[in-house]
Amino acid sequence: MQYIQYQSEKDLERIIARPTLDSNDLLPAVQEIMNKIKTNGDNALIELTEKFDGTKPRSICIEKDQIEASSTVISSELKQAIELAAANIKKFHSAQNPKTLEVEVTPGVNCSQKAVAIEKVGLYVPGGTAPLFSSVLMLAIPAVLAGCKEIVLCTPPNRQGKVPEPMLYAAKVAGLKKIYCVGGAQAIAAMTFGTETIPKVDKILGPGNQYVTAAKQLAFLQGTAIDMPAGPSEVLVIADETSNPAFVAADLLSQAEHGVDSQVILVCTSNSQIRAINKEIEQQLEILPRKLIATEALKNSTTVLVSDLEEAMFISNSYAPEHLIIASENFESISPKVTNAGSVFLGNLTPESAGDYASGTNHTLPTNMAARAFSGVNMDTFMKKITFQQITEKGVQNIGEAVSTMALNEELQAHANAMLLRLNSIQNPLT
Amino acid sequence: MQYIQYQSEKDLERIIARPTLDSNDLLPAVQEIMNKIKTNGDNALIELTEKFDGTKPRSICIEKDQIEASSTVISSELKQAIELAAANIKKFHSAQNPKTLEVEVTPGVNCSQKAVAIEKVGLYVPGGTAPLFSSVLMLAIPAVLAGCKEIVLCTPPNRQGKVPEPMLYAAKVAGLKKIYCVGGAQAIAAMTFGTETIPKVDKILGPGNQYVTAAKQLAFLQGTAIDMPAGPSEVLVIADETSNPAFVAADLLSQAEHGVDSQVILVCTSNSQIRAINKEIEQQLEILPRKLIATEALKNSTTVLVSDLEEAMFISNSYAPEHLIIASENFESISPKVTNAGSVFLGNLTPESAGDYASGTNHTLPTNMAARAFSGVNMDTFMKKITFQQITEKGVQNIGEAVSTMALNEELQAHANAMLLRLNSIQNPLT
Repeated sequence: MQYIQYQSEKDLERIIARPTLDSNDLLPAVQEIMNKIKTNGDNALIELTEKFDGTKPRSICIEKDQIEASSTVISSELKQAIELAAANIKKFHSAQNPKTLEVEVTPGVNCSQKAVAIEKVGLYVPGGTAPLFSSVLMLAIPAVLAGCKEIVLCTPPNRQGKVPEPMLYAAKVAGLKKIYCVGGAQAIAAMTFGTETIPKVDKILGPGNQYVTAAKQLAFLQGTAIDMPAGPSEVLVIADETSNPAFVAADLLSQAEHGVDSQVILVCTSNSQIRAINKEIEQQLEILPRKLIATEALKNSTTVLVSDLEEAMFISNSYAPEHLIIASENFESISPKVTNAGSVFLGNLTPESAGDYASGTNHTLPTNMAARAFSGVNMDTFMKKITFQQITEKGVQNIGEAVSTMALNEELQAHANAMLLRLNSIQNPLT
Repeated sequence: MQYIQYQSEKDLERIIARPTLDSNDLLPAVQEIMNKIKTNGDNALIELTEKFDGTKPRSICIEKDQIEASSTVISSELKQAIELAAANIKKFHSAQNPKTLEVEVTPGVNCSQKAVAIEKVGLYVPGGTAPLFSSVLMLAIPAVLAGCKEIVLCTPPNRQGKVPEPMLYAAKVAGLKKIYCVGGAQAIAAMTFGTETIPKVDKILGPGNQYVTAAKQLAFLQGTAIDMPAGPSEVLVIADETSNPAFVAADLLSQAEHGVDSQVILVCTSNSQIRAINKEIEQQLEILPRKLIATEALKNSTTVLVSDLEEAMFISNSYAPEHLIIASENFESISPKVTNAGSVFLGNLTPESAGDYASGTNHTLPTNMAARAFSGVNMDTFMKKITFQQITEKGVQNIGEAVSTMALNEELQAHANAMLLRLNSIQNPLT
């Protein structure tokens, strides 16, 4: 890990830099994939799956009995863990369900704002060396809670040409019915345009590699909503003399094992703690199955020595991490000052992996500084807010003149007329 | 207006079609503008303003005394109207301010969700034949209420090379301080990359022409958040035998006068009402200053005869209008069934122009079917929601095993370790 002793804002640039990742270079190649799916639908989908995944799925669509059968294949320990996680995710997300807001803005002018589920959403969960069933829970549970009518899940086939059972089980627990065994840019294209088998959706969500990201960007240019731009996963840990070095090291490594491009930042108030943490990293790294990946990731990572927790928080807000761990007993002194982060983990007993799986918060979070302007997936992600207004005679009298004055000053006579006709009808009810 | 007697879902396609508008064709030209601003900053901004707006602004940045002086120039009638509108917009938007949500998901696992203002936002208000000061209010008031620290407004110079006073006055009432006299794709580029004068922002909002839309799309590909895709304005009016034909005609015309590409849809349960409304349109159109524009817009517009209000609502939800007016005394029978719309106007006394200016709702709304997945501008637009979790010993005991089981099944050993170390430290406090 590179070491920086923070001295002034000049150092910030080096700390917050992410590896340049320009998925825009991929846009032409991905556009070609999108066009193929748009033109040839399922046939192109099968052809591209054979080409990119090296396997021919028996069927794009997973049958209901396959979903049901998943529960007979996986261990009861894993089933219980998935069920516990699902229950916690449900509890935290259902509490977010927005209530309809009603305001009498001025007498006779009644306005309201109502959240309504997006009708058709497409969830994407990437493949990988192991089945990412936790991402199925994180996307599917709030979609079902929000009341989305059509929820489509696409995920690529594994080496055996199928969707792994733990993912099907997570989908079953979440209440999904439409699961398709396709991945990559071709899956995003299918949900953008629709094919004979896969429905066109209104919004596409979920993580993915650079091809998936590029495809989501192109989908957005087509008018399909997407959740957020995606980049490599990242964590920033704030540590001080009250931190447990073994825990901090384990948290840094749990991020580093994700991929060689993972970003790991340690911001610490104490050099002796930094030494203790580094020693723990060395020891814990030795026995990790993904040691090579984690070692690579750590090479791109940074340790920053700061003078106090305030300075640490300033750096964190500038970095805008996907995950922020405040591994200090004094977390309450700075946690109210978090302005840019996806999800925050407070104190020594709250590892990022808690939120990755089972604390109830979502793990689909903004990366690469997107936390400055984007939220992680939450109930809002699956809803839009519609405003309503209903005006009475009294209300027309209260705002009618202001409306017509403003309309006339914007040279929109018909806008003024629409209000003036109502105003006149009230003032002269006999005409 | 084309006339369709609705018979089956086969007719939907013709009704919901928008004029094809592919701003993607403009992307290369707009990319060039973006690159110029990125490379040459203010110099390019001045050069492009001269080229596209045909005027050389005395200064890009509007000075504080110019903003203050606006109040001495405009009529007290307009000032009062702007102040009344601003008060209503403030009241409705401040009621939307999200509260922090705190949930003990399971004993010892405390999760919360907190809305935090986006630090830097860029507002764009297009030019036009007349100053669109209402759009300044609609974008600036919620940005200020949300607590955004840096709020930048860009708007093009008028023919006199300056920002019209009513816009400055609206900005003053809303509490804006940073106003820049630049427009078009070059203004979006300036807010995306920053120049010597104009700050780089985290999110760009506001309406604009196809060049502005294309520039916002390119900004999005750069990682800058945007509000929503923009297209021509549109209204769908549902009418029945209880509607007032003069009011309906006025509402349709107020949309038609926006531009030749405006979309106007009338969905009515009664042929005699359609005749009465058409007669009113003819009469009212005659005396409109923007008669030519409105006449053109009406040519692309559609009247649909339906059998009842239920069918009308089905068509409206399929069309997903930016503005929906339910011009019926029976609006309550169908308004709960609205699933896709930007803003909804209920009853005979609630014209769209009320919401355009002063009812308190926002008029920056999703067009071109984006209402299926996007909200209009609201307080959420200026905030992101950050999740927090804090876990106690009890919490680690409650979810620790589930987390490690899931992590191991996703082959992420370090994720499991991070939780197991905590679990062990609690179970064996002496080690």
